[in-house]
Amino acid sequence: MKNMKDVWILRIGHRPERDQRVTTHVGLTGRALGAGGMYLASDDKGVKKSIEDVAGRWGGDFKVENNVSWKKVIRDWKEAGGKVVHLTMYGISVTDAMPEIQECEKVLVVVGAEKVPGDMYGLADYNVSVTTQPHSEISSLAIFMDHLFEGKTLDLDFEGAEIKVIPTECGKRFES
Amino acid sequence: MKNMKDVWILRIGHRPERDQRVTTHVGLTGRALGAGGMYLASDDKGVKKSIEDVAGRWGGDFKVENNVSWKKVIRDWKEAGGKVVHLTMYGISVTDAMPEIQECEKVLVVVGAEKVPGDMYGLADYNVSVTTQPHSEISSLAIFMDHLFEGKTLDLDFEGAEIKVIPTECGKRFES
Repeated sequence: MKNMKDVWILRIGHRPERDQRVTTHVGLTGRALGAGGMYLASDDKGVKKSIEDVAGRWGGDFKVENNVSWKKVIRDWKEAGGKVVHLTMYGISVTDAMPEIQECEKVLVVVGAEKVPGDMYGLADYNVSVTTQPHSEISSLAIFMDHLFEGKTLDLDFEGAEIKVIPTECGKRFES
Repeated sequence: MKNMKDVWILRIGHRPERDQRVTTHVGLTGRALGAGGMYLASDDKGVKKSIEDVAGRWGGDFKVENNVSWKKVIRDWKEAGGKVVHLTMYGISVTDAMPEIQECEKVLVVVGAEKVPGDMYGLADYNVSVTTQPHSEISSLAIFMDHLFEGKTLDLDFEGAEIKVIPTECGKRFES
C-alpha cells in the first residue's frame, strides 16, 4: 500500500469497560482510509487483537500499539518532524485547516473519547472540527481522512488480503 | 435549515441491548450532516430520547421515529418518489454511484448493523460501498453524507440552538 503521507491515529480517553466497540471502529476506519496504525493510550489488549485480526484477514500491515503514554507519543511524533491534529468539535473547521495540514507528510490524528484532558488543546498543532455539532469521533475521523487524502484512499488495495470484496450492484461477491 | 435534498436515515438491525451507542452516533452523524431524521426499525425509546435531547439543545428539528417497520418505510419512501440507498461494503463504490444519486431530491439512507436481511439488497435502488473494507457504519454514513452534499453541510446552522460552538484554534468557546 503506497500512501503519500504517514498518518497514525492516537486514541486517548479510551475506557476498556465501555469504549471497546467505538475504539475498534476508530481503528478500522483509520485503517480503511489509509492510516498506518493506531496508538492506544489505554491498556486494552482485546481492542488491539480485534483490530489486528481484521487487518490480518483483509490485508495491509495496520498495527495497534497498546498502552502507550499519549504525551510521549506526541513528543516523539513532533521530534520526528510530524504534526499533531486533534479532532475536536471546538476547533477550526476542517475545510479551513486542511490546506495547511495537507502540506505535512507525517500526521498524527488524535481522537478523544468523551472527556479530553485540557492540555491536549495546547499540545496539538491543529485543533480541527468536523462540523461544530456533537456527533461521533468515528465520523469526524472518517471525514478528516477522506479530506486529507482527497478521496484517494476510498479504494485502497491491501496487500496480502485473504479476502477481498468485488463491488456489485446487488448481493455479495468475494474473492478469497 | 435549508437543504436542497430531503434525506432521512433508516437504521435496521439495531439490537437494544448492545447497539445503543453506535445507533446514537449514526443518528447524530445524520443530523450533523443534513439529514432530517432517522427511522429506527427497532423499539428503543432510549436512543430516540438521547438523540432528540441533543437535537433540542443544539437546534434544528431532527426527529427519530421509533419502532418502524423497515419494509413499510422503504415502500412509502419509494411511493413518494424517493430513492433508497443501502450502505454496504459489498456495493458499488460511493464515487461511482454518487453522480446518479445526486440527481435524487429525496434519499433514504439505509444503515445496517452487523447482520442485514438478504432482501435488503434487492429492495435498495443503490447498494453503495464506502471502501470495500470492514470499518464502521458510522464512518460510511459520514462519508456518504459529505459526498452527497459536496461538503456543504459541514457548516450547517441549526435554528433555535440553545448552545453554539465558536470555532477556535485552541480551547473551547461557546455561545449560549
